[in-house]
Amino acid sequence: MFAPLQNDTFLRACLRQSTPHTPVWLMRQAGRYLPEYKATRAKAGSFMGLATNTDYATEVTLQPLERYPLDAAILFSDILTVPDAMGLGLSFALGEGPRFAHPVRDEAAVTALRVPDMNQLRYVFDAVTSIRRALNGRVPLIGFSGSPWTLACYMVEGAGSDDYRLVKTMLYQRPDLMHAMLAVNADAVAAYLNAQIEAGAQAVMIFDSWGGVLADAAFETFSLAYTRRVLAQLKRSEDGVIIPRLVFTKGGGLWLEAMGQLDCEVLGLDWTVNLAKARALVGENGAHAKALQGNLDPNILFAQAHQIEAETARVLDSFGRPHQDSTASGPTHIFNLGHGISQHTPPEHVAVLVNAVHTHSRKLRGQVN
Amino acid sequence: MFAPLQNDTFLRACLRQSTPHTPVWLMRQAGRYLPEYKATRAKAGSFMGLATNTDYATEVTLQPLERYPLDAAILFSDILTVPDAMGLGLSFALGEGPRFAHPVRDEAAVTALRVPDMNQLRYVFDAVTSIRRALNGRVPLIGFSGSPWTLACYMVEGAGSDDYRLVKTMLYQRPDLMHAMLAVNADAVAAYLNAQIEAGAQAVMIFDSWGGVLADAAFETFSLAYTRRVLAQLKRSEDGVIIPRLVFTKGGGLWLEAMGQLDCEVLGLDWTVNLAKARALVGENGAHAKALQGNLDPNILFAQAHQIEAETARVLDSFGRPHQDSTASGPTHIFNLGHGISQHTPPEHVAVLVNAVHTHSRKLRGQVN
Repeated sequence: MFAPLQNDTFLRACLRQSTPHTPVWLMRQAGRYLPEYKATRAKAGSFMGLATNTDYATEVTLQPLERYPLDAAILFSDILTVPDAMGLGLSFALGEGPRFAHPVRDEAAVTALRVPDMNQLRYVFDAVTSIRRALNGRVPLIGFSGSPWTLACYMVEGAGSDDYRLVKTMLYQRPDLMHAMLAVNADAVAAYLNAQIEAGAQAVMIFDSWGGVLADAAFETFSLAYTRRVLAQLKRSEDGVIIPRLVFTKGGGLWLEAMGQLDCEVLGLDWTVNLAKARALVGENGAHAKALQGNLDPNILFAQAHQIEAETARVLDSFGRPHQDSTASGPTHIFNLGHGISQHTPPEHVAVLVNAVHTHSRKLRGQVN
Repeated sequence: MFAPLQNDTFLRACLRQSTPHTPVWLMRQAGRYLPEYKATRAKAGSFMGLATNTDYATEVTLQPLERYPLDAAILFSDILTVPDAMGLGLSFALGEGPRFAHPVRDEAAVTALRVPDMNQLRYVFDAVTSIRRALNGRVPLIGFSGSPWTLACYMVEGAGSDDYRLVKTMLYQRPDLMHAMLAVNADAVAAYLNAQIEAGAQAVMIFDSWGGVLADAAFETFSLAYTRRVLAQLKRSEDGVIIPRLVFTKGGGLWLEAMGQLDCEVLGLDWTVNLAKARALVGENGAHAKALQGNLDPNILFAQAHQIEAETARVLDSFGRPHQDSTASGPTHIFNLGHGISQHTPPEHVAVLVNAVHTHSRKLRGQVN
């Protein structure tokens, strides 16, 4: 059905298999920093007009690959498509963040929540298949979803928040309602990711963008437990090929040890985490050892080329030399930013970054070419 | 000059000396959640009108002590008074955060920065003396400042920020300018805190509110090094009495081990940190052992009374039993929130919290009364 994969470095690194260079992709790599993205979005009229149109979603997903030798593509979409399909009424006002017309703030609203009919998200799965075809085997395609907790944050707050007061009030005052919502979210996310896998996604990533706002005692109960519930339901392979699962908790560095026990292949790390320590803690050995993904501060892309190269090398060196035994598994690193790329990033700086990852990571392996 | 201190639990706990209960105070305890604060602010006309008027600043600092048996008072002021005195033109628009008319964004602006004449901050020191007199020995008075890095964030951004793009662009592109600014800030903060000590502050706290946005490799260089530069210049005692120094880095939990080496008495912790782990890491033993302060999620104050009591007990239990040897030093805990109290907090819930800290912490010591 799909063309054979030509660059499997990302998938191999996910599975802790050796690669000739450290694969690199960037969160939000298809986005507003690219003038060609802005042109497509202008044609589409709105963000959701872009995300719901298969041709446009395919076009923008491939744009960064035309510019840079990235090692993976990621579906162009938004984490809030799932609550939108639950009937919350998602919109993106110009220059503002997402907003829900019907936030979930009381018992009646929580009780009414259901796993949405996946047919309402058909546009996403169609985009996945279309993108996979358009990629034609160049690099693998990553599907994604927000985590149950992160979706709950937006569903209760109705928009982004500074203090997460409304969602935390529900959490502390009515933990029963919060658990009920998170259970629905988890089952919806699992169904959503499985449908992406069936449509052609070759890896899936769970973005727990707001896990880091939780208190230490609450993270395990209200975020990690439901990420675990998603992972337990995910397909492990499709057509005989393993589908790696990536989990990224922004601000979750303190809970790395607990995340190291998750049944997934890769942990994403933000820029506050020391990669050498993370590798020693969860990336080195053991039955649950993980591949690590991250973690350059996106603001480094505003510096000059030689500074970007130096900071890129520093991140690669901090992880250290990945294992190089082609017959065994061992520590691997997938290069990424610690968070989404800024819309203000000069596109030519991304070229410097991607080249620096490939060049320096080959040097690190003693394989200068 | 000042009345003798009646409740020394906070100061004793800072110095890792035993106390009959765990002392408690709350960041932003004098603030908008109190109707009497709003009334005073209305009289003052503006935030800076309030902060610069000795009588008003004294009045609002004491307001929470009239309601609750808190174990410390903290100067009512703002962390941005220092850059304001540098000539950056601080203002607070109604319903918005602080803003500087003249942000520091280029080499000329950095080069022009100087440690301000402390006479321009006389209103702060006058407030300290006035509050200390008004306290009349009830509880100790804490003075404070922003950290050099946190001040730099506001000085470059000109206001709060989501992504710290401008200040990080300067950091990565022109580290020389950033170091020059941080050096001036550190010397200004040290002079500012020393003047507060001379005016009557019995402890001083450095708020590194934005330390947690730095990348792992940058935190040590651009935040911690300059906090250290402040600490090295601070007076250790006044009139023969030790002045404890508290350092709080919001989002700094990952760097606790490095902060454990600071030459200060207390480390503040936000709610993402596990107190038991923090105690084991930096609070238990050794030449540099610290008292620990924190770390309830302020949003817990939106739950019901029995839930607030349970979560308060959980935080106290997480730290565990403080040492009880009146002849030696050992692990101590100062109860606080993990961040400033929300303006939406019901005032009666704060009474529940303070009572729960005192009651449960006595139980924890086996001294039910």
